[in-house]
Amino acid sequence: SVNPDLAIERQTASFSVEKLTTWLDGGVEQTRLRRAVVEAIERDPVFSRENQYFQSQNERYEAAVRNAVHLQKKMNEMGWSENGPEFKYIYRAVAGEIAFLLHRVFMRSVSMLGSDEQVAKWIPLASQYQLIGSYAQTELGHGTYLQGLETTAVFDVTTQEFILNTPKISAMKWWPGDMGRSATHTVVFAQLYVHGKSYGIHPFIVQIRSLQDHSLCPGITAGDIGPKMNFEHIDNGYLMLQNVRVPRENMLNKFCEVQPDGTYVRRGSQKINYFTMTSVRISLISGEAILPLMKACTIAIRYSAVRRQSKLKPGEQEAKILDYQTQQEKLLPQLATAYAFHFIDDYLQELFDRGYREIQRKNFDTLPELHALSSGFKAVVTQFCTSGVEICLRACGGHGYSLLSGLPSLYTKIIASCIYEGENTILLLQTARFLIKCFMASSTGQPIPPSVAYLAAVKPGNCPAKNKLDFLHPDIYTEAYQHVAVRLISSTAAKLQDLIQSGVKKHDAWNQCTVQLVQAAKAHCHYITVKNFAEIVGKIETKAGIQKIMKHLCDLFALYGIFSNTGVFLHDGYISGAQMDMVTASYLDLLAIIRKDAVPLVDAFDFTDKSLNSALGCYDGQVYQRLYEWAQKSPTNKQMSPAYGKYLKPLLHNRLSKL
Amino acid sequence: SVNPDLAIERQTASFSVEKLTTWLDGGVEQTRLRRAVVEAIERDPVFSRENQYFQSQNERYEAAVRNAVHLQKKMNEMGWSENGPEFKYIYRAVAGEIAFLLHRVFMRSVSMLGSDEQVAKWIPLASQYQLIGSYAQTELGHGTYLQGLETTAVFDVTTQEFILNTPKISAMKWWPGDMGRSATHTVVFAQLYVHGKSYGIHPFIVQIRSLQDHSLCPGITAGDIGPKMNFEHIDNGYLMLQNVRVPRENMLNKFCEVQPDGTYVRRGSQKINYFTMTSVRISLISGEAILPLMKACTIAIRYSAVRRQSKLKPGEQEAKILDYQTQQEKLLPQLATAYAFHFIDDYLQELFDRGYREIQRKNFDTLPELHALSSGFKAVVTQFCTSGVEICLRACGGHGYSLLSGLPSLYTKIIASCIYEGENTILLLQTARFLIKCFMASSTGQPIPPSVAYLAAVKPGNCPAKNKLDFLHPDIYTEAYQHVAVRLISSTAAKLQDLIQSGVKKHDAWNQCTVQLVQAAKAHCHYITVKNFAEIVGKIETKAGIQKIMKHLCDLFALYGIFSNTGVFLHDGYISGAQMDMVTASYLDLLAIIRKDAVPLVDAFDFTDKSLNSALGCYDGQVYQRLYEWAQKSPTNKQMSPAYGKYLKPLLHNRLSKL
Repeated sequence: SVNPDLAIERQTASFSVEKLTTWLDGGVEQTRLRRAVVEAIERDPVFSRENQYFQSQNERYEAAVRNAVHLQKKMNEMGWSENGPEFKYIYRAVAGEIAFLLHRVFMRSVSMLGSDEQVAKWIPLASQYQLIGSYAQTELGHGTYLQGLETTAVFDVTTQEFILNTPKISAMKWWPGDMGRSATHTVVFAQLYVHGKSYGIHPFIVQIRSLQDHSLCPGITAGDIGPKMNFEHIDNGYLMLQNVRVPRENMLNKFCEVQPDGTYVRRGSQKINYFTMTSVRISLISGEAILPLMKACTIAIRYSAVRRQSKLKPGEQEAKILDYQTQQEKLLPQLATAYAFHFIDDYLQELFDRGYREIQRKNFDTLPELHALSSGFKAVVTQFCTSGVEICLRACGGHGYSLLSGLPSLYTKIIASCIYEGENTILLLQTARFLIKCFMASSTGQPIPPSVAYLAAVKPGNCPAKNKLDFLHPDIYTEAYQHVAVRLISSTAAKLQDLIQSGVKKHDAWNQCTVQLVQAAKAHCHYITVKNFAEIVGKIETKAGIQKIMKHLCDLFALYGIFSNTGVFLHDGYISGAQMDMVTASYLDLLAIIRKDAVPLVDAFDFTDKSLNSALGCYDGQVYQRLYEWAQKSPTNKQMSPAYGKYLKPLLHNRLSKL
Repeated sequence: SVNPDLAIERQTASFSVEKLTTWLDGGVEQTRLRRAVVEAIERDPVFSRENQYFQSQNERYEAAVRNAVHLQKKMNEMGWSENGPEFKYIYRAVAGEIAFLLHRVFMRSVSMLGSDEQVAKWIPLASQYQLIGSYAQTELGHGTYLQGLETTAVFDVTTQEFILNTPKISAMKWWPGDMGRSATHTVVFAQLYVHGKSYGIHPFIVQIRSLQDHSLCPGITAGDIGPKMNFEHIDNGYLMLQNVRVPRENMLNKFCEVQPDGTYVRRGSQKINYFTMTSVRISLISGEAILPLMKACTIAIRYSAVRRQSKLKPGEQEAKILDYQTQQEKLLPQLATAYAFHFIDDYLQELFDRGYREIQRKNFDTLPELHALSSGFKAVVTQFCTSGVEICLRACGGHGYSLLSGLPSLYTKIIASCIYEGENTILLLQTARFLIKCFMASSTGQPIPPSVAYLAAVKPGNCPAKNKLDFLHPDIYTEAYQHVAVRLISSTAAKLQDLIQSGVKKHDAWNQCTVQLVQAAKAHCHYITVKNFAEIVGKIETKAGIQKIMKHLCDLFALYGIFSNTGVFLHDGYISGAQMDMVTASYLDLLAIIRKDAVPLVDAFDFTDKSLNSALGCYDGQVYQRLYEWAQKSPTNKQMSPAYGKYLKPLLHNRLSKL
């Protein structure tokens, strides 16, 4: 039965939860499909995550491999294919607890970087799992800066082979997923040398383990990199190569080839490589950042509607913690952020699809904009979502700290998204470089891409708001965000120019501006997010109640951003101190309004209890009962610890002097 | 051998590292003593933490019990006692990996809340480990709000016993350390009923496990609460009581007693209870928050001096990541914060000692101030240190995410300090209540305690700084912090009064101001921290170089606080936009200055490699070699996973259709 404290929250929803769910999914059919996939996966006991929080790294890995293999069977059974409409829901349904994700990256690399012959040879083997692939790029000593990779591949013209080596310890491949224990093959990125000349980084297919008995191939040293903050289910690995020879045909050669005599030929454009990174960054935003934040909000908000602590009014029952302003101020902005980013994800997908169509027509003009936006949003979304999950965790007090709440795992996993696929600070600086370039171009009247067109149309003046209600006008706050973005970009551009003119070298000047460049890039993404949210809200039609609550959330997201970054709005007086007090007042008012719909708003994310895997977040709100039941399953309760016989009993039964 | 990239950082130190170390320790003798204790512990293989990152919860618990028992032996051997000068260094030396901390809380409770007879009976038993104690206060449904605890203790006048019960599941004791598997006895806090009348929360000594075979006593259900984000070495437990009877003498009765006929007698003052909480909060700040931040800084800064990535200048060697402004801006403010809080810890200790002397003279006047300061600083210090450790972790990129870096464990442990011993938001609101009270008192001319005397001496006017160098004057920035604290406290007090005068009930009005009250409390603590740091720096004499570098750190801490909270300084124009640009300029300049001494500044914390337990943070900077060596010890590399035989082999050897 549902805890009455949670049931009552659902009775007063100002909108239809089901309608909001289908709207978020993109239609009734999508919702049906998603639920069908999730149900099929969750009904299958093989995929159960019931014991996940009690498992060792070894057990997690074994389960992930089991899931990956079983998923192939399941897909056959269900008639799902990798290109089918169900596929995108599978990862959500297994909650990421699955191996062979890098096998897929292996296949993608071969498809994109390999010649037709190479694709014809390797893709059928890989898709039939006659090999298990991985992707070995990162080294112990090099991550983001690919040019610095130290692994070498020397062409031996006499045998028509490449000889791969790990010349020093920092050149060891380190981190590649699926490589520590599973992979039989991997794509190794190495510095190519032909006749003593260096040609830069190239990809080579290398077999690392025997297809017969999985033993390591000659010259290969490989293993697991050991325990991590999370991702225990993935065998991130290391790889050392000692005179490993691969045939000439194993260099992926769609864009460049070493001919039998050692002649190096480059063909086609490598620009498309940026597009791969762009695609990966955009695709991870939803599953690795926004969904975890939505889950964390669901858990924390349901728990806060059930947890009672202390009294708001003397003589009354203890209050739900969700009724405290401080608790609302922790959780509700995170909820609004989850919605805001859900819409940004749509925005980026659309931009990406449009760009992709252009690229297919060999038009690469949109690449810089796409690269800049995907980099900046990857950084901003993962950063906001990570800190949002942390806030949710801490807002649940002690119980949030128990693994059984589900929150620690969400946090320890999402924090990695700030680092992988491009460290966030580096990414923001790439966005900043694009912004500065566009700003300079616009100031000399050159055309600039649509997403930054606002840089050319700077309006003078201050914020026109006269009372707190004015700050609920999207025009008012969107323009404030725009103003700040323009100001930070233009002032940093000016500082950069001043430094250069005063004689500082270009690279030093850039380095001396990077803290402010990062701020500027963030402000740009923040502005786009607010603007996009406001536009979405403006377009919602008819759906009873949904428009209204989305408007509240959009307002909250925008005002929260101002409230928590007051300085950048106050700096040049665009918003005055008195106006900032109005922002604060409207912001705090909104908390009380949205609080009423908080539970329906997380219900609309439509997570099953199994997918949340949280004793605090279940739909029925029976948190204490579930914490108790789950704790009893812990291995720490399975038997008396050997510590009793070894240490406690001797201690208790003897005098201390006998120790 | 030391990595040359790290060695060179030490050659250019602007001060004597050894002199700074002894100054931080409080003298040469303290340093000698600390090193002796650490060495004795670390040389003993029983205390080795070599395998910590590979251990299961069960193994961690067993190791912690082993360490606790072995420590008794060690202390005998070394002639150390619990009251000796060595004792405070032991916890640092074992890095917290030890059981029976709650046994000590059990003893403290008996000493403080028990009568002379009770002390005489229980303390010898406990100190001889003829029982293992715990402290059962928190319940599944109640943490911070003690009055809400639901466990009952009913006095049975016929048998002269208390009958203890857990009336519902939310009343189950949950979280107490050492209780899940170790304790034989515990202090249970329960609602006392005599002749049907309720007398509130009282402490009772209850035996929960047999002293003979450790089996649970009749009526007792107890166990471990399962996996947590960290503290796997501690057996946090649950406890359910069903008609458990304890003799009348087991209620700790120094302050109140139930007489044989059921008459309830209260004696003495219970105010002293606040003093215990105050003492615990102050004592945890150093070991649980500041030391972990110092460790995280040591690891991240040494690693950043060794890690090279990308080029700052074309044609040159790849740059140390510590040379990037963005990396400096992440790490150096954390370093300054660690120093700032080291001095605040001294400040609070001194305040506490002074208060304690007064209390021994039965003067309780300083209690409210002490309570407010200890609450606020517990919250602010744990919050800053937690986010500092997270920044250090993320600043180390992928390798920071490996458990072998030591950073994930520091983070997952320190984050708990924001929750335990009073959830931070609640604590800040207690500080705020005190501040508002003092502000109101001062405005009617009443005397207020010294730490808040500044509230009565508000000076009008704006920040007088004219150029960026002016912001390196402690008077300038200290006054800015003071101004902000006064403004936030007074404006929130005004809002509170306005609400009440407009007819809002007092409790509702308070709730509607809590977001701002929390801000005000933080601003107060921030101000005191800056002021205290500046005063310490002002008093440093003669020590060559130390005064200068401490001045830089103090400036950095102060300007970092302004730079990252610009809004509160700009709000009323106390600092103008143009002045804020000067702050930014001075702040960024300082980063480049302090960067030169960054490694010596962390070396001065004097952590041994064993205490850091980090592949990235060792003194010799051989990070890649060590990551590789440590990873090979991981259980994931001990044998081929069963996953191969069960799933991978069948997959690779069969066609997919046979699945």
